[in-house]
Amino acid sequence: MASSEITELIQVLSRLPGLGPRSARRMVLHLLKKRESAMQPMIRALEAVDAAMVECTRCGNVDTRNPCGICTDPRRDDGQLCVVEDVSDLWALDNAGAFNGRFHVLGGTLSALDGIGPDDLRIDSLCARAKADGVREIVLALSATVDGQTTAHYVRDRLEPLNVQLTSLAHGVPMGGELDYLDEGTLLQAMRARRPVAASDA
Amino acid sequence: MASSEITELIQVLSRLPGLGPRSARRMVLHLLKKRESAMQPMIRALEAVDAAMVECTRCGNVDTRNPCGICTDPRRDDGQLCVVEDVSDLWALDNAGAFNGRFHVLGGTLSALDGIGPDDLRIDSLCARAKADGVREIVLALSATVDGQTTAHYVRDRLEPLNVQLTSLAHGVPMGGELDYLDEGTLLQAMRARRPVAASDA
Repeated sequence: MASSEITELIQVLSRLPGLGPRSARRMVLHLLKKRESAMQPMIRALEAVDAAMVECTRCGNVDTRNPCGICTDPRRDDGQLCVVEDVSDLWALDNAGAFNGRFHVLGGTLSALDGIGPDDLRIDSLCARAKADGVREIVLALSATVDGQTTAHYVRDRLEPLNVQLTSLAHGVPMGGELDYLDEGTLLQAMRARRPVAASDA
Repeated sequence: MASSEITELIQVLSRLPGLGPRSARRMVLHLLKKRESAMQPMIRALEAVDAAMVECTRCGNVDTRNPCGICTDPRRDDGQLCVVEDVSDLWALDNAGAFNGRFHVLGGTLSALDGIGPDDLRIDSLCARAKADGVREIVLALSATVDGQTTAHYVRDRLEPLNVQLTSLAHGVPMGGELDYLDEGTLLQAMRARRPVAASDA
């Protein structure tokens, strides 16, 4: 149907997360129709990011600066450090405005199956940061999966001698979640961690 | 959170059809992680299309050649011409393998509200093609909307003196469609256009 260049572009786009051949085709058509207002700004924006992107050597975030914008932001609290598996988790937490300290990206989870051991993750640099920066609290914001919790356990063992307060994210019913759609593990955890209703909550 | 280049890229992507800020962020993260296998092929594919794309002066399709691949394909039947509103309709019909003749893109529909009259669409060139090419049949594949049917009516009036067979797409129950989810107009049309069950259909 279309020329090889257009077919190639559709294929490249359809490999992106959340897109398939049909939505990629719709997107290409949009770009073809709006060459100056959509296609060319998109090329320029991609090139700008591709030219400037770099991994932050301090925290593992991806940014166009090194150290990244979060590591250099003077309004953030150096005393709190949030450990996440991946850059996407960092962006999600930061976007929610949930945390005003610094981050540390491990770059994955320990996984015996995939052959990922402690040396493949940024655990040594985490320990170094935990010692050097005068950190008061480290939040282990790892996934509530088997691999995530195994990793959290290992990190906890490594950080415990450092005399820093270790915390983890609360588990429970997600906001807007309906009880009868939730899995048993979440309900069990929510019931175990139930809290007294304070006057200010009611 | 992210640098201005990354924020700009997220904004550009989130304006594409079918994407929002959240899916654009996920996409950018994927591109950042897979710079060589995703980001750079995407830039090259976009640049190739942007450099080569052109509108076919014969049929109105968008391609990297003029006349386009469909107009120059020798295996297609010159005797059949399918009139569509938009390039996206052409791609959809062609992708379904539904038609093996040539296409003609009107570039929109007549619309009194938006001030689009016959001179804003490729109706004159359609009449010229209908005369010149020895066309036997013209399929009016326009949308089953008020504007689409108004346009079909106008095109029919213009083409009728040319002694060419005019046809239109069948209306009825879409394949896989459940009757109780369909609107009354479609059901009415499907009932009116009911056909005897032939032995070969059963």
